[in-house]
Amino acid sequence: MEGHPGMMNSGSEPPVPSEFELIARLFAPLATSSDALGLRDDAALITPPDNSELVVTADALVEGVHFFRADPADRIAKKALRVNLSDLAGKGAIPHGYLLVLSIPQWVDFHWLTRFSEGLRVDQERFQLSLLGGDTTATPGPLTIAITAIGTVGRGRMVSRSGARPGDDVFVTGTIGDAGAGLACLQGLCGKLSRSERQMLIDRYQVPEPRTSLGKVLPGVVSAALDISDGLIADIGHLASASNVRVEVHASKVPISEPVGHLWQDRREAWFRALTAGDDYEIAFTAPRTNHNAVGKLAAELGVSVSRIGRVLSGEGVFLLDEMGIEIPVQQKGYVHF
Amino acid sequence: MEGHPGMMNSGSEPPVPSEFELIARLFAPLATSSDALGLRDDAALITPPDNSELVVTADALVEGVHFFRADPADRIAKKALRVNLSDLAGKGAIPHGYLLVLSIPQWVDFHWLTRFSEGLRVDQERFQLSLLGGDTTATPGPLTIAITAIGTVGRGRMVSRSGARPGDDVFVTGTIGDAGAGLACLQGLCGKLSRSERQMLIDRYQVPEPRTSLGKVLPGVVSAALDISDGLIADIGHLASASNVRVEVHASKVPISEPVGHLWQDRREAWFRALTAGDDYEIAFTAPRTNHNAVGKLAAELGVSVSRIGRVLSGEGVFLLDEMGIEIPVQQKGYVHF
Repeated sequence: MEGHPGMMNSGSEPPVPSEFELIARLFAPLATSSDALGLRDDAALITPPDNSELVVTADALVEGVHFFRADPADRIAKKALRVNLSDLAGKGAIPHGYLLVLSIPQWVDFHWLTRFSEGLRVDQERFQLSLLGGDTTATPGPLTIAITAIGTVGRGRMVSRSGARPGDDVFVTGTIGDAGAGLACLQGLCGKLSRSERQMLIDRYQVPEPRTSLGKVLPGVVSAALDISDGLIADIGHLASASNVRVEVHASKVPISEPVGHLWQDRREAWFRALTAGDDYEIAFTAPRTNHNAVGKLAAELGVSVSRIGRVLSGEGVFLLDEMGIEIPVQQKGYVHF
Repeated sequence: MEGHPGMMNSGSEPPVPSEFELIARLFAPLATSSDALGLRDDAALITPPDNSELVVTADALVEGVHFFRADPADRIAKKALRVNLSDLAGKGAIPHGYLLVLSIPQWVDFHWLTRFSEGLRVDQERFQLSLLGGDTTATPGPLTIAITAIGTVGRGRMVSRSGARPGDDVFVTGTIGDAGAGLACLQGLCGKLSRSERQMLIDRYQVPEPRTSLGKVLPGVVSAALDISDGLIADIGHLASASNVRVEVHASKVPISEPVGHLWQDRREAWFRALTAGDDYEIAFTAPRTNHNAVGKLAAELGVSVSRIGRVLSGEGVFLLDEMGIEIPVQQKGYVHF
């Protein structure tokens, strides 16, 4: 859609080469799938593989809310794409393509957009998907990046949040809390860490690692799953609610990286911060005991660490337990809102 | 994805009921399709009908660029949805569902969002589609609404921009230029019109009429089509370019409504403004002579006026001709950029 130049001084077109030139030079090369119709047709055409279904998800990143203007443009691009790929992984879907809606303010120039598109190109190759379409418009406000990602999954094989059953165990990939600590580092709050520790945490915040490879093998092994974006406890709360079960998480079993352990030396503070920070983009899932071997095998094959952190019971809600099995009252402490 | 409260004073949640409450109260009721998984699963699951393909398109509306803050919230919602439905209609696709990404500034309150969701509800019923998912986030900038719409079309039946052939005629639905004139009215530039004329034009600008019913019958009858969003001449230029043909449009045959005729009394000015204003959301299409009867029949059946406005020839580019068949040099006049 065209904006109306009369409605704002800056006009409706991005303050960079014309929209058409931008698309031709930077984005058409990213439309590697024939589904994208070369970005010439204002729409994509998706022919789903036989016996498959499509999983569709959308997430937006806003300058000043989800990233800083000074962040490297290629990293912003990667994060915008990866938070969506993480959603697909949590559903057991294989990435297929994405649509990109860019609202571009005056401060964004062609150099910035070139670096942004380069970040997308690298991640498209790595995660094997294509730009399919989208929209660019000018905005008088913050840079806003909305991505809709589309994945495929075998018919009836999508992993939902609602399949957890009493008796299942609860697992999580990777380590939790790195991204939250990385944000603290960007805010100048982790001076006691070494430079390499700080960089590792900042990397985890700026360029999360969607567990796409794990996502592909989840169907058939797990009973429920989701990706951790709001914080481990909040998201497991969503899973418990969708599944109508109670989940107990053992704080001491939640995997925490060494830098996070160094940063928050009080053990309990480390847990709280890690469990409620969000932006982890790891996968939490539940599986019946009978599938434990399968879980272990696929983690080993894929080179992804998987930790058992709790169990599913009858009832409702999510509860955090300390090493003595005594409940840690997270809600009262105001760390979590669910 | 969760934003980080430390990054802006207003926090990452919308300045209204919590994101969860907002979804539960206003948006979950719009998730009428089982594909939406009740909006509880952070993704939608689409099972395409047998022998069908999916058409996917995305368009964003930004406050101050595409609409005014004072516009009625239900009309903003309808326009955001309809510009996407118009894209689907231009492809011959039947609406299936949509994802909504809302970036919500401080000035938006619960009352506004209620009215916004009511606009979506009305249009969902009218155009028979469901909310499938999306994202809400706070923004320090303008309200930004990004919608990704998904439609279905029979396998191999999508109408593209690239099928126009020399000898085809060029058609357009409805009247052209009403929305552009409506914007002029909102800017106080059409005092000479009656109140009802002004309102008609403003309605056409704020609540365009996507030609969804026509879209359903385009496949098999037309050779190429697209919806008019950038302006009739600019968009027909896109069609000519995608089809590698030359298109001649007869200015005097372009259908103009009575209010637009009254507003721009100089006939040539009326044409120019109408042909380049954009935001029409009518459908332009080409069809071979042998299908003229079919075109006439379907227009009559659907109650949509269809006008023949030009023809397709060998060559390239789009050319505007006056009543004497002499070219009107639109490019030099700076009205059109293509």
